[in-house]
Amino acid sequence: MNQQSYYGWWQRDDLCYQHQHLFFAGRSVQSLADQFGSPTFVYSAARVKENLERLHGALIASGLAGRFSLCYAMKANRFAPLLTFLKQTGLCGIDACSPAEVEHAVSCGFSPAEISFTASSLSTRDLHVLARYDGLFMDCDSLHAIRSWGALKPGTKIGIRINPAMGIGRAANDKLQYAGETTTKFGIYWEQFAEALELARSYGLKVAKIHFHTGCGYLTPQLEQLERIIGHCMRFVDAAGGVERVNIGGGLGVPHLASDQSLDLKRWAEVLHRQCAGRGLHLEIEPGDYIVKDAGIFLLEKTFVEQKKNTVFVGVDAGFNLAPEPAYYSLPFQPLPLRYDQSPCTPMNVVGNVNEALDVWYEQALLPNLTGHTHLVLINAGAYSSSMASNHCMRGQFKEFLLF
Amino acid sequence: MNQQSYYGWWQRDDLCYQHQHLFFAGRSVQSLADQFGSPTFVYSAARVKENLERLHGALIASGLAGRFSLCYAMKANRFAPLLTFLKQTGLCGIDACSPAEVEHAVSCGFSPAEISFTASSLSTRDLHVLARYDGLFMDCDSLHAIRSWGALKPGTKIGIRINPAMGIGRAANDKLQYAGETTTKFGIYWEQFAEALELARSYGLKVAKIHFHTGCGYLTPQLEQLERIIGHCMRFVDAAGGVERVNIGGGLGVPHLASDQSLDLKRWAEVLHRQCAGRGLHLEIEPGDYIVKDAGIFLLEKTFVEQKKNTVFVGVDAGFNLAPEPAYYSLPFQPLPLRYDQSPCTPMNVVGNVNEALDVWYEQALLPNLTGHTHLVLINAGAYSSSMASNHCMRGQFKEFLLF
Repeated sequence: MNQQSYYGWWQRDDLCYQHQHLFFAGRSVQSLADQFGSPTFVYSAARVKENLERLHGALIASGLAGRFSLCYAMKANRFAPLLTFLKQTGLCGIDACSPAEVEHAVSCGFSPAEISFTASSLSTRDLHVLARYDGLFMDCDSLHAIRSWGALKPGTKIGIRINPAMGIGRAANDKLQYAGETTTKFGIYWEQFAEALELARSYGLKVAKIHFHTGCGYLTPQLEQLERIIGHCMRFVDAAGGVERVNIGGGLGVPHLASDQSLDLKRWAEVLHRQCAGRGLHLEIEPGDYIVKDAGIFLLEKTFVEQKKNTVFVGVDAGFNLAPEPAYYSLPFQPLPLRYDQSPCTPMNVVGNVNEALDVWYEQALLPNLTGHTHLVLINAGAYSSSMASNHCMRGQFKEFLLF
Repeated sequence: MNQQSYYGWWQRDDLCYQHQHLFFAGRSVQSLADQFGSPTFVYSAARVKENLERLHGALIASGLAGRFSLCYAMKANRFAPLLTFLKQTGLCGIDACSPAEVEHAVSCGFSPAEISFTASSLSTRDLHVLARYDGLFMDCDSLHAIRSWGALKPGTKIGIRINPAMGIGRAANDKLQYAGETTTKFGIYWEQFAEALELARSYGLKVAKIHFHTGCGYLTPQLEQLERIIGHCMRFVDAAGGVERVNIGGGLGVPHLASDQSLDLKRWAEVLHRQCAGRGLHLEIEPGDYIVKDAGIFLLEKTFVEQKKNTVFVGVDAGFNLAPEPAYYSLPFQPLPLRYDQSPCTPMNVVGNVNEALDVWYEQALLPNLTGHTHLVLINAGAYSSSMASNHCMRGQFKEFLLF
């Protein structure tokens, strides 16, 4: 993992040291820790909105004004106050992937017509719940889904999630391969696409959208690959005929390491404009990480600092079960001290309180002497953290706060 | 993963086909599915007891009668009815690793004196809760823990969790390395052990137990390694002086694949007898997997069977978030059809209903034609499944039943 000091690469106006104290969303993080206790996720509404507006701005600047929609991938973070805030911005709809997500999004204020639904392995029970939400837009992920939805909602418009058998990602990470050389459960492949179209026709379903999601966490270096994949997917659009919308899924990445380059949104939007505008297609994008990841921090109490054999460990009062990405996907959350005192930094392993070997937050983080520090914070913890939390070892308790 | 047919290696008296129907714990699994619905974990109390009795039997046969205790590692499965059943067998105490686990075990009927507590990164809050449970036996995992517990409970007996810097495991799996060449957060290393003893003395704490846990899922081929590690750990016992108990942790494995050999309990118990009996040490063992893993099955509804590109997928109505071991640790749960009809088997990928690429239950499982089958079952799902479940994608609902 990253060998550089904590100080530097991640800084921005709303997350930085001021007079040696870490500030987030205009608050001293120490004061948040003192008030809220730990373990606690804190989200910045302003940063969420900024992220949304930055995407809108780039897409509009590229010439796509009025021809795109953002559907927030709520599986990234479903904290109810956050969803209601997103609704009120008017800047996005919802990407949902289970009946319970649809119900939850509606409970937070979204209308079914604002929800794009894409899931695999739907049960009969699932389909009956979904069919109750008039206006919900269904992207069928399999022949089975076309058949089942066609029986329930004949004559309606649907999307088809296709699998281009081409993948994209920030790095070689087998666990994040949605599409690529290995055949996955996601979407309908070219080999079965004609059958899918025929099946849709037989139920009077109109294929109005082609959906594909080809990977996670892409940054600027992956944009050429993204363009090739979108270009490749247009054969499905052409074969279907009469397609109105293309949904390119999510996957826009956020830097995790000092060595990561931010996603160049201008170039990204130009790719999308180049591939979609000439065809008169309305573009849908399903960002999750990009909207909320860097808008969330995770406040943790320091439990101990101690050398074991030749390694210094810093313990905190939460384990990987509350935010599984670092442990499972090797996407580390940079730890930061709440005070920056310019003392020399030494490498420390930041570890949690769960009895599992993979309960490591960050290996060899360069941190200052932590004597007198009561807390640490992990940044980039706004996505795929609380939403994936478990009660493993009964260490499942945490709090969440949305700051305005 | 395993390329063999589903039929065969996993069979036993209480889990087998009778007149072509799968039976578990004396019930037709189809009737369980029809009654309980899905996704549902079903546990066999009789199998749990058999597993406990088999361990007792082997240890007694080796000559350790009256000189050992089993502490069930409740993080494997904390389903309350199961814990109360375990209490009533009188065959085991509890291995707990968080204050909430202690409270839950006590709520299910265990007394604090039956609980061995071993955890890392304890907060001040944790320690104050634990100190309220008189009789709870604390294994200190760090100098920090000795210092903190010593301040709260001076003059009491403690254990010290040591780290022998030697690991054991069923296979190369980085994610299950508790001890070995890489320095982990677990336990006190030899380099700091003298300091630990001195610290204990300074609080009047008596080091009555040495605890070590060196890996997970070991089977017969790993027994030589286990013996070497236990032998190596005796230098800590000798250095401490006056140690009454040795706790060798858990890690006893259960076969997952046709190619796995069962753990030879006779040889296992002989190893323990050889290493501990001559020293007059009372032996503690903390099995989790071994007690409950093969006593649990996971009932799932079949949602679809469909070819995608060149691969046949079988969908089910639950995702890896309800039982993370197969996805995260490459420990697959064998899928079985509820009817065995001797039709030819073909390879299928059994997949769940969560929008994540790693949501795969079993790759290339050899299964019969599933037309007319409403459900599938996964075996070996009794441990580290429901206890690690999350509500990711809001697919977190499941049921649990303990069968007598």
